[in-house]
Amino acid sequence: MGRVVVALGGNALLRRGEEDTFEAMYRNARFAAERVADIAQEGWEVVVTHGNGPQVGRILLQQEAARGWVHPMPLDVCGAESQGQIGYLLQVTIGDVFYERGMERPVATVLTLTRVSPDDPAFTEPTKPVGPFYEEQEAKRLAAERGWRVAPDPHGGWRRVVPSPAPRSIVESPVIERLVADGVIVIAAGGGGVPVIEEGPRLVGVEGVVDKDLAAEVLGRDVGASVLLILTDVPAVQRGFGTERAEDIRRMTAAEAEELLRAGEFAAGSMGPKVQASVGFVRGGGERAVIAELSDAVAALRGEAGTTIVP
Amino acid sequence: MGRVVVALGGNALLRRGEEDTFEAMYRNARFAAERVADIAQEGWEVVVTHGNGPQVGRILLQQEAARGWVHPMPLDVCGAESQGQIGYLLQVTIGDVFYERGMERPVATVLTLTRVSPDDPAFTEPTKPVGPFYEEQEAKRLAAERGWRVAPDPHGGWRRVVPSPAPRSIVESPVIERLVADGVIVIAAGGGGVPVIEEGPRLVGVEGVVDKDLAAEVLGRDVGASVLLILTDVPAVQRGFGTERAEDIRRMTAAEAEELLRAGEFAAGSMGPKVQASVGFVRGGGERAVIAELSDAVAALRGEAGTTIVP
Repeated sequence: MGRVVVALGGNALLRRGEEDTFEAMYRNARFAAERVADIAQEGWEVVVTHGNGPQVGRILLQQEAARGWVHPMPLDVCGAESQGQIGYLLQVTIGDVFYERGMERPVATVLTLTRVSPDDPAFTEPTKPVGPFYEEQEAKRLAAERGWRVAPDPHGGWRRVVPSPAPRSIVESPVIERLVADGVIVIAAGGGGVPVIEEGPRLVGVEGVVDKDLAAEVLGRDVGASVLLILTDVPAVQRGFGTERAEDIRRMTAAEAEELLRAGEFAAGSMGPKVQASVGFVRGGGERAVIAELSDAVAALRGEAGTTIVP
Repeated sequence: MGRVVVALGGNALLRRGEEDTFEAMYRNARFAAERVADIAQEGWEVVVTHGNGPQVGRILLQQEAARGWVHPMPLDVCGAESQGQIGYLLQVTIGDVFYERGMERPVATVLTLTRVSPDDPAFTEPTKPVGPFYEEQEAKRLAAERGWRVAPDPHGGWRRVVPSPAPRSIVESPVIERLVADGVIVIAAGGGGVPVIEEGPRLVGVEGVVDKDLAAEVLGRDVGASVLLILTDVPAVQRGFGTERAEDIRRMTAAEAEELLRAGEFAAGSMGPKVQASVGFVRGGGERAVIAELSDAVAALRGEAGTTIVP
């Protein structure tokens, strides 16, 4: 069938408004795992990637709460922790489903670093909010004390903001490619991967967040995937989203998608980066990208659901 | 040269009494990374494994401190988080050293699960202390509330105790074997791997801690390593350790080592499991096991330092 990169939204594991218990995360992971198994069962080679927003937010909160006893780790280390946490849940649940269905496919989680450019303009204009909410005065005190950038959050309160640089390449892609070619279901680039810059001879982790859909695009390119499947919580990309004239888009070319992106049809930080990643993927040699609801994964991959973007 | 599993002690990254800052962990990881590079430079295929005691202890403390806002994750999930955290530090520092020395060897961290038996006697007699120290009364209250087992700690105070079941096999060993055969330096089975039991068709994570040296033994067997190198903070195994007649052991057979184990020469939870893992490794087909100080890694591998155990 070919090779597909499946990008799961950060909310695939922890839904908005849901209690953040292990049981809820496990149940959600299990649902996603069944979709991954459906895809593998159709004969695809699969790389799974996922968001980590809700999880890394909780790790940051835990670090703050224990600050009196344990030195907090920088954001890059927290991102790596979240890759372990989420990768474990996905790996165990995918393994379960395979086993129940009598499928013999190994599953592995590869800790992933994502190269970004030190000259990325995101480093001078950090925009991605992370961690707890603060009162304005407290936020400004922390900014002065810890060298943070802080900004008011659209949901009220103030938060730390970090750069969201563009992914350039996936450090582990040769390893991931090797495994997926051997039939392993690989979980990689969780949370967009830990951003690293080349500083002389060193790869240095930076405190930032790579958009997970853009990282999935680069991962797809680097491992030679033919399809990028972005799974989210809406059935399709819409023209006029949130208005009375809202209308599902079934199929569009990269040029059409770019035009709609320029016209501001898609929300930044939401559908925007998904469409942008899709365009980048098919422009970079991918056959097609599909944006669809998690529950429609297999139908979307067959072109029967969601929004397909072609070159 | 062959294939070696290098087991780093939990204190290789965070030394006793040292402040638990990122900078300290990074500096220690860098020192260990140089030793791993020394070994790779001699032509060995290398799998690196490591402890996670100090790190998972801190994650548990952070979870407790934030309990009012964030639901704590079970110990198996915390173990997976620690694999991400430590794997990241080791991977970045090993990559740095390789780059500086002009060596082209990819490095990858594979999240690892370790199969244990549900009938392991450790499940009825938990002995491994984890997490914060409590007063006796508080410990007993938590035990009743959360279903924990608690016990007085030799260092004073009370702690939660969890089972430390024997590792049976490494779930990801086919993947690890494939990568290491391709020249990848693989970091795996951190903290002994997350213990899982087969429950009907499912692999279920359990709240326990697999001894990292015993996991290294099983990992070495499962990936067909010829040497198991256990690096710690003493130069050699000693007969009469801590007494006036203390004497380094340069070389012993598995039978000799077993006799000393039976005679109670080696401390449980310290040198005991290292010697036991070494004996198991050479009895299971390994050429030799070496127990040595981290700084002596290469000399030890050449048989010029540490204690060598042969079949």
